[in-house]
Amino acid sequence: MKILILNGPNLNLQGRRDKDVYGVESFGSYLPKLQARFADVDIELRQSNIEGELIDMLQQSEGAYNGIVFNAGGYTHTSVALRDAIESVATPVVEVHISRIAAREEFRHTSLISPVCRGSISGFGLDSYRLGIEALIEILHQDQDPKEKH
Amino acid sequence: MKILILNGPNLNLQGRRDKDVYGVESFGSYLPKLQARFADVDIELRQSNIEGELIDMLQQSEGAYNGIVFNAGGYTHTSVALRDAIESVATPVVEVHISRIAAREEFRHTSLISPVCRGSISGFGLDSYRLGIEALIEILHQDQDPKEKH
Amino acid sequence: MKILILNGPNLNLQGRRDKDVYGVESFGSYLPKLQARFADVDIELRQSNIEGELIDMLQQSEGAYNGIVFNAGGYTHTSVALRDAIESVATPVVEVHISRIAAREEFRHTSLISPVCRGSISGFGLDSYRLGIEALIEILHQDQDPKEKH
Amino acid sequence: MKILILNGPNLNLQGRRDKDVYGVESFGSYLPKLQARFADVDIELRQSNIEGELIDMLQQSEGAYNGIVFNAGGYTHTSVALRDAIESVATPVVEVHISRIAAREEFRHTSLISPVCRGSISGFGLDSYRLGIEALIEILHQDQDPKEKH
Amino acid sequence: MKILILNGPNLNLQGRRDKDVYGVESFGSYLPKLQARFADVDIELRQSNIEGELIDMLQQSEGAYNGIVFNAGGYTHTSVALRDAIESVATPVVEVHISRIAAREEFRHTSLISPVCRGSISGFGLDSYRLGIEALIEILHQDQDPKEKH
Amino acid sequence: MKILILNGPNLNLQGRRDKDVYGVESFGSYLPKLQARFADVDIELRQSNIEGELIDMLQQSEGAYNGIVFNAGGYTHTSVALRDAIESVATPVVEVHISRIAAREEFRHTSLISPVCRGSISGFGLDSYRLGIEALIEILHQDQDPKEKH
Amino acid sequence: MKILILNGPNLNLQGRRDKDVYGVESFGSYLPKLQARFADVDIELRQSNIEGELIDMLQQSEGAYNGIVFNAGGYTHTSVALRDAIESVATPVVEVHISRIAAREEFRHTSLISPVCRGSISGFGLDSYRLGIEALIEILHQDQDPKEKH
Amino acid sequence: MKILILNGPNLNLQGRRDKDVYGVESFGSYLPKLQARFADVDIELRQSNIEGELIDMLQQSEGAYNGIVFNAGGYTHTSVALRDAIESVATPVVEVHISRIAAREEFRHTSLISPVCRGSISGFGLDSYRLGIEALIEILHQDQDPKEKH
Amino acid sequence: MKILILNGPNLNLQGRRDKDVYGVESFGSYLPKLQARFADVDIELRQSNIEGELIDMLQQSEGAYNGIVFNAGGYTHTSVALRDAIESVATPVVEVHISRIAAREEFRHTSLISPVCRGSISGFGLDSYRLGIEALIEILHQDQDPKEKH
Amino acid sequence: MKILILNGPNLNLQGRRDKDVYGVESFGSYLPKLQARFADVDIELRQSNIEGELIDMLQQSEGAYNGIVFNAGGYTHTSVALRDAIESVATPVVEVHISRIAAREEFRHTSLISPVCRGSISGFGLDSYRLGIEALIEILHQDQDPKEKH
Amino acid sequence: MKILILNGPNLNLQGRRDKDVYGVESFGSYLPKLQARFADVDIELRQSNIEGELIDMLQQSEGAYNGIVFNAGGYTHTSVALRDAIESVATPVVEVHISRIAAREEFRHTSLISPVCRGSISGFGLDSYRLGIEALIEILHQDQDPKEKH
Amino acid sequence: MKILILNGPNLNLQGRRDKDVYGVESFGSYLPKLQARFADVDIELRQSNIEGELIDMLQQSEGAYNGIVFNAGGYTHTSVALRDAIESVATPVVEVHISRIAAREEFRHTSLISPVCRGSISGFGLDSYRLGIEALIEILHQDQDPKEKH
Repeated sequence: MKILILNGPNLNLQGRRDKDVYGVESFGSYLPKLQARFADVDIELRQSNIEGELIDMLQQSEGAYNGIVFNAGGYTHTSVALRDAIESVATPVVEVHISRIAAREEFRHTSLISPVCRGSISGFGLDSYRLGIEALIEILHQDQDPKEKH
Repeated sequence: MKILILNGPNLNLQGRRDKDVYGVESFGSYLPKLQARFADVDIELRQSNIEGELIDMLQQSEGAYNGIVFNAGGYTHTSVALRDAIESVATPVVEVHISRIAAREEFRHTSLISPVCRGSISGFGLDSYRLGIEALIEILHQDQDPKEKH
Repeated sequence: MKILILNGPNLNLQGRRDKDVYGVESFGSYLPKLQARFADVDIELRQSNIEGELIDMLQQSEGAYNGIVFNAGGYTHTSVALRDAIESVATPVVEVHISRIAAREEFRHTSLISPVCRGSISGFGLDSYRLGIEALIEILHQDQDPKEKH
Repeated sequence: MKILILNGPNLNLQGRRDKDVYGVESFGSYLPKLQARFADVDIELRQSNIEGELIDMLQQSEGAYNGIVFNAGGYTHTSVALRDAIESVATPVVEVHISRIAAREEFRHTSLISPVCRGSISGFGLDSYRLGIEALIEILHQDQDPKEKH
Repeated sequence: MKILILNGPNLNLQGRRDKDVYGVESFGSYLPKLQARFADVDIELRQSNIEGELIDMLQQSEGAYNGIVFNAGGYTHTSVALRDAIESVATPVVEVHISRIAAREEFRHTSLISPVCRGSISGFGLDSYRLGIEALIEILHQDQDPKEKH
Repeated sequence: MKILILNGPNLNLQGRRDKDVYGVESFGSYLPKLQARFADVDIELRQSNIEGELIDMLQQSEGAYNGIVFNAGGYTHTSVALRDAIESVATPVVEVHISRIAAREEFRHTSLISPVCRGSISGFGLDSYRLGIEALIEILHQDQDPKEKH
Repeated sequence: MKILILNGPNLNLQGRRDKDVYGVESFGSYLPKLQARFADVDIELRQSNIEGELIDMLQQSEGAYNGIVFNAGGYTHTSVALRDAIESVATPVVEVHISRIAAREEFRHTSLISPVCRGSISGFGLDSYRLGIEALIEILHQDQDPKEKH
Repeated sequence: MKILILNGPNLNLQGRRDKDVYGVESFGSYLPKLQARFADVDIELRQSNIEGELIDMLQQSEGAYNGIVFNAGGYTHTSVALRDAIESVATPVVEVHISRIAAREEFRHTSLISPVCRGSISGFGLDSYRLGIEALIEILHQDQDPKEKH
Repeated sequence: MKILILNGPNLNLQGRRDKDVYGVESFGSYLPKLQARFADVDIELRQSNIEGELIDMLQQSEGAYNGIVFNAGGYTHTSVALRDAIESVATPVVEVHISRIAAREEFRHTSLISPVCRGSISGFGLDSYRLGIEALIEILHQDQDPKEKH
Repeated sequence: MKILILNGPNLNLQGRRDKDVYGVESFGSYLPKLQARFADVDIELRQSNIEGELIDMLQQSEGAYNGIVFNAGGYTHTSVALRDAIESVATPVVEVHISRIAAREEFRHTSLISPVCRGSISGFGLDSYRLGIEALIEILHQDQDPKEKH
Repeated sequence: MKILILNGPNLNLQGRRDKDVYGVESFGSYLPKLQARFADVDIELRQSNIEGELIDMLQQSEGAYNGIVFNAGGYTHTSVALRDAIESVATPVVEVHISRIAAREEFRHTSLISPVCRGSISGFGLDSYRLGIEALIEILHQDQDPKEKH
Repeated sequence: MKILILNGPNLNLQGRRDKDVYGVESFGSYLPKLQARFADVDIELRQSNIEGELIDMLQQSEGAYNGIVFNAGGYTHTSVALRDAIESVATPVVEVHISRIAAREEFRHTSLISPVCRGSISGFGLDSYRLGIEALIEILHQDQDPKEKH
C-alpha cells in the first residue's frame, strides 16, 4: 500500500511559521515518526507552492498511489481547479488541516475541496496527517471488501 | 481512560435512516467492535434528541470522562447553546460527522461548534467515530506530556 | 386509519395567544369538531414545547400512525434536527400553519421542514388542520393504490 | 357558489411536462372529477401564459366569482403586478402549487403573492386544487357567518 | 411583588465559565445579596438548559409572577419559539445579559427576543440582573398607575 | 460623584416627538426628578445635534465627570467617529435608548457604539436613564474596589 | 405639444384600490381636471396590464408624442424589458408614482427604470402626474433651447 | 405662504461642481428666477455643510415656514439623525435631488429620508426645486382643505 | 430542417437601438444573408414584446420546428415562466445574445434560462445568431446519430 | 490565419473525466477532426494546469496568433490575473466551455473573464471549440474590413 | 508650495489613544519634525471633529493650498458628503491612515473617499503623513510638467 | 540595505497595458531612475506570473533582503496562499499598487494581503514604488532603533 502526503503552499515552512497555530515540529522531523508508525505502508511526501503543480501531482497519482492525504493550504479556500482535479481522478483523497480552520478568519471557513474528498480532518496539529492515513487505510479496505463497510 | 461518545438528534436511528448518506450499520452493531478495537479504553455511548439534555451531559462530563467524541447531528448547525456548553467545560471535545456535510445542503456547511472543539472529522461513515477516539487518545497523551506535542 | 396531529411550541396556548393572528378557538374546543367531521379516522393530538420530544414523537410514529399533520410552530424556521427526523421516518408528514407565515416577520418566511414534508398548508386558521387531514387521507389512498394518483 | 380556477404560465401543458414533478394527469382529465366531487359548486377553469391577462382575469373576478384558486406558475416568484392585482380586488384568492416549491430551486422558495392570498397550499399534486376549493368553501362560509369562525 | 429570574442554558455554570467574559461570582453567592437588596420583593431563580422547559416556565408565569428577568443564554440568538412564548404571555419580561454581546461573535449580535421584551440590559456582569429587577419594579408601578408613566 | 447625561440628535425634542415611541415627558420635567432620586450624585445634562460636538464633549469628559450616560440618538447606527471617541477616553460610558430599538426599523438594529460602551440599556422609556445612572454608580464602585466585583 | 400618460398594471383600478395608499379619485375624474390645467397641452391617457403592450406603446411613441409621463406600477421593480424599451426610444420619459414607494415593502424600493428616465417623482398622490407634466414641459423647452438650461 | 429651501453639504458649490451631473447655474443666479416665478410665495434659502445644523434648521422650521424643500446632499444616504428630525417636526418636507441619483453609484440608491418625506423628486436639474415648490403648494392646499384631495 | 429564430422584447428595434452595444444592422437586412448562408435550412423569424406570447411560441414549436435560436432580451434575467416553458418542450433551444451581457449592468449577469437551454452564445453581435444555427445543426445531427457525439 | 486553442487546468484529462458532464472524446481524437474542418486555418493546441503559464501564453500570443479560443477551466471563476492578461493583450480572445456552467454549482455561474473576452460560448460539448473558431474567423474578417460588420 | 494636513475626528487625541494601534507620539511633537524634513514646503495642520467643518476646509482649500494630506478618521467609512467635497474641489487630496485599517474591524475596510483621492497610504503610523507629503510633491510636479509623468 | 521589488502577474507588461490606468513608462525605464534616487540602497526587481513562484520568492527573502515592496497584481484579491506566505516570513513587506484599486471594479476593492503587510500604498502610478521604498527604509530604521518610533 502506497500513500502520498501532498502538501500545498507554505507547508514547506511547517515548524517555522506561526507556532501557536501550526506547532513547532517540521515535516523533516515528523515524517520518519509517521513512517515508523505505519510500517507496512509506503508513505511519500511531496510539496509545491504552485497550484498547477499540485494539479499535476493529483492527476499523476492514478496507478502510482493507493490514496492521498491532501493539505491544500491556502488553495483550499480559493481553488476550483484543484477541486476539479480531485473529482477527475479515481484515487481516493482525504482532506487534512493542521489548524482549526473554522476558528480562524472568515475566508478560511469555506473549503472548495471538501465536497469532493472522501472525508475531512482538521485541527489536530500534525496528528491530522496520522488520522488521514488511518482513514485512508480503512477506505482502501472497504473499497476492496465492500461487505466490511459499516 | 474513559471516553464518552455523545450522539445528538436522530442518531438513535443510525442504520435505518437514509442509507446512501449514513450507511447500514447501527450503533448496536458498531459499538462492540469499537470497544474491542480500543481494549484499554472505556467507551460509553449516550444519545439524546433533546438539545438541553446534551448540554447537561456535556456539563456533567468533567471528572466523569477524559474526553468526548461528539456528533451533534442537526444541532451542529443551529445551536449556540451547545457551543457555549463545550466552551464552558474543560473536557476535550472532538467533533465527528458520519456524512460529508460539506457536500450536502447549504445549511449544513456551517458548524457552530467547530471553533470550540479540539478538532473535527467528517465524512468517513461510522469510521469517523474510530478516528475521533484515535484523535482523543493522542490529545490526552499530549495534554499529559506536552513535550510530546508536535 | 390513525392520524396524529402533532403540535409544537406554544400551540398549547392556542385561543389565548394573539387573536388577530391565531383566532380565538382552542384545541379543546376544535378537536371534537374535527373528530366528528372525520368519523372514520382516529385522530389523536399531541403537543410539546420541547424540540427533542417532538423528534421522539416523530420517530415513534412508524407503525403507530398512518400519517402526521405537523405544526412545528417556532421550530419550523430553525430546526435542522426536526427536518432530519421527518426525513428519517417513513410516516407521511403534512406541514400546517394557522397563520399566513409569508405575511409575517422575515424570519418566518423560511421553513426548514417544507422540503421534506409531503406538502404544506398555511394561513387558513384552524381549518389548516382539517385541510391537512384531507390531504393526508388522499396521500394514503394514493400510496395504497398508485394507479389512482393523478 | 361559483369558483374560478385560474392557471398561470405553462399549466396548459399539465400532464405533458416533467412528470416526476407535476404528475401525469391533464386538466382535461382532472377537471370533470373535481366538478363531480363538488356537485353544488360551479367550478370554472381559465388559463393564460400572459401575466397581464391574468391580472385582467383577477380584476374581472369581482361579482363574477365567489373565490379564486390561483396557481400563478412561474409568475409566483417574480410578479409584483399580480400581487397588486390580488390585493386590489375583494374576491378571496387561495394560492396553490402542484409541486413542493420549497424543495426545488432557490428562486422558487419566495412567493410574492403568498402574503396577499388568504392561504397557501403546495406539494399535493393536482389534489392541491381540491384542497384549495375545500379551503375556499370554508372561507366563504366564515365570511358569511363570522360567528362560525374558529 | 414576586419576580422570577429565569436563566437559560449554561447559566448554571456561572462563576466557573470563562471568567474574563462572565466574572467569577456564582448565583449561589449572588442571589442572597440580590434578595437582601430588594427586601420587599420575592425573588425566585429558575434555570434550565432545555429550550422547551424555558417555554413551559414562561407560559406558567401568568398569575405566578409579576414579572420576569430573563437571560436566555445561547437561545437568545436562535429561538423563535422562546420569542413566541414571551409574546404569548401577559407577564412583562425584561431581557438581561451578563456580557456585552455586541462586542462578541457576529452571531451574538442579533437577539430574537429583544423585540418582544419590555426592554433589554446587557454588559454589566451580574449587575445586569439587579438593573433588570429595578426596571421591572418601575414597569409594574407604571402599569398599575399609568399616570406616573413618563 | 459627577455624572454627565449626554444626549444626541433630536433628543431636545423629547416629549414632543412621536409619543407612542418616546413617551410624553420632556427632559425639562424629568431631570429634576432624576436629580432628586440620586441626591448624592451631581447629574448634568448636555445635548447637541452635531456629531462632532458630541465627540468634543466625550473628549472633554476626562477629569470633568466620573461617568457618562450616553444616548447617541440617530448617530448610534451610523457613527464610527463617536465610537472612536468613546474608545479613546477613559471615562466609563453607558449606552441608553428610550425606545426598544430592536423592535423598530432594520437600520436601528445595529449599534456601532455598543461594543465600546461598558453596557447597554434600551426600551424602558426615560427610565433607561435612571437605570443608566444606577449602572454607572455600580461600575464606579467596582472600579474603585475591584474586590467587590461579582 | 402632445404628452402621453402611460399607466401600467392595476392603475385602471385607481380610486377603488387601497385608498390609504392610492387615494379615492379615479382617472376618469382626474384626467379632465389635468387637461383643463394644461390648456395648451394635448394630454392622452393609455393603460395596459400587459408588460409587452406597454413596451409596444413606448416604442410607438416616437413621432406620436413629445414626451411620456410613465407610471409602470408593479413592473417598475421587476422589468428589465421596460427599461430597455425606454432606453431604446428618443421620447423623453418621466417616471411617476402615486404612493411613496420608499415607505412601502422592501421590494418596492428598487426601480429598474429610474436610471433611464429623465427624472422621477413619487409620493404626491395623483398630483405626481401633474408634476410629471410640469417637468416634461420644462425638459422639452430646454431640449429646444439648450441655452435656457440651468 | 413661506417656504424654506434647505440645502445640505456641498450645495453651496452648485454651478462649480461636476457640471455634467449638476449643471452650470448657481443658486445665486437661480433663486431670483424661482422667486419671480412664485410671486405670492416667500421663498428663503439656507445651506449648511454640518449635519447637526440641518437638524437644527428642520427643528426650528415649525411656525417659521409652511413647508420645506429639502436637498440633503450626501447626508441623504447616511443620516438616520436627519430622518428622525424630519419625522419629529410637523412641517411638511419634500425631498429633491438635482441629479438622477438612481443612475449613479450604488450607495446613492438608498435614501434614508424618502420614507418620512411627503414625496420625492429627482433628476430634473435645478428644476427639481421648482417642482418641489409646486408640490408643496398643492400639499398645503390639501392640508387646509382635505376635500380637495384627490 | 426548420429552425425558428425567436426574438424577445425590443429586438424589433435592432439597428436603431444603442448602436455601440447592438450594432447598426437590422434583422430586415440580416435575415436574408443568414438564410443565404444556410441554404438547406428553413429559417423563420418571430418576435414579440409580450412574455406570454413568447411562451406560446415555445409551446407551439413542438412538431413545427426542429430547433430554436432564442434571444429572450430583457426577459432573460427575470422570467421563471420562460424557463419553465423551455423546460416543458422537447424542441432543443439555444440561447443567444447580441451583446456581452457579462460586461454590462449587474442585473444582466444572471440568465434564468441558461440552465435549461442546450448551450449559450453571447457577445458576437448579430453573428451570435449564425453561431446559434451552427450549434443547433450539430445538436440535431447528434440527436439523430448519437454515435457521432463527441 | 493562425489560431491558438488554449486549455486550462484538467482539460488534459478530457475524455477521462466525468463523462456525463464532459463527454467521452479526448482532444487527441478531436483536434485532427477540427483541423480537417478548417483546412485553411492553422490550429494549435496548448494546455497548462498552471495559472501563470496560461498568463505567459496569453502574453506571448501577440504576433504569434491571430486569435485565441480559450477554455480557462476552473480558473474561469477565480482568476483576476487571467482577466488582466486578456485585457492587456491585443489578440482577440473567445471564451468557451464544454459544459453548461450555468446549470452546475453556484460558484461556476460567475466568469471573471467573460467581460474582457470578445464573446462567450458554453454548453455544446467539444463543439463549443468549433463554434469558437467560427466566431473568431468572423471577428478577424470584421476587424480587417469594418464595413462588413453587422 | 503650501500643503494642508487635514485631520478628522479624534485625531486631536493622537498619542493618547490606543497606543498599540496609533503609537505614542502626538502631533504637537511630530509636526515640527515633519516641517524640518520638508524645509521648502509650508505645512499647515488643521483638525476638526465636525464632519461639516472638514467639508468647509476642503472647499476653502482652493487657492489657499497646493494640496491636502487628509486623514478623515472615522468619517472615512461613513461620509458620502466628504467624498462629494473632495470630488468638488480641484485641490489634489491624498488619503492617509495611521493604522492598518484593513487589519481592523470589518466596517473599517471600506473607504468612501478612496475612489476620489489621488492615492491612498495606510498603516505606517505617523510616517503615513510624511509619505503623503512625498506623494503630493510628486503629484504637483507632474501636474506642472506632465512630460515628467511616468 | 537590500530591497526586493516583487511584481506579480502582468506587471511585466507595464507600459504596454491600458495606459489610462497604468501609465506609459515601463520598468526597464523606471528602475534605473529609482536606483539612482536611492543611491545607498540595493534595489532588485523580480517578477513572475505564477502565484507559487511569488510564494517561493517571498519564502526565500529571509536573509537575502531587508524588505520587500510587493505588487501582487491580480493575485491581491484572490490569494490566501500569498497572504500566508507573507505572514510566514519575517521580512517586512509593503503593499503597493500603481492604480487606484478602490476606484475600479468591485472585486478589486478587497485585498487579501493588506492585513498582513506593514502598510499599503496605492494610486500614485509608478511613484507608489518609490513611496514603498521610502516607507520600508523608515520601517527598517525603526525596527533597528525602536526608540525612534513615533
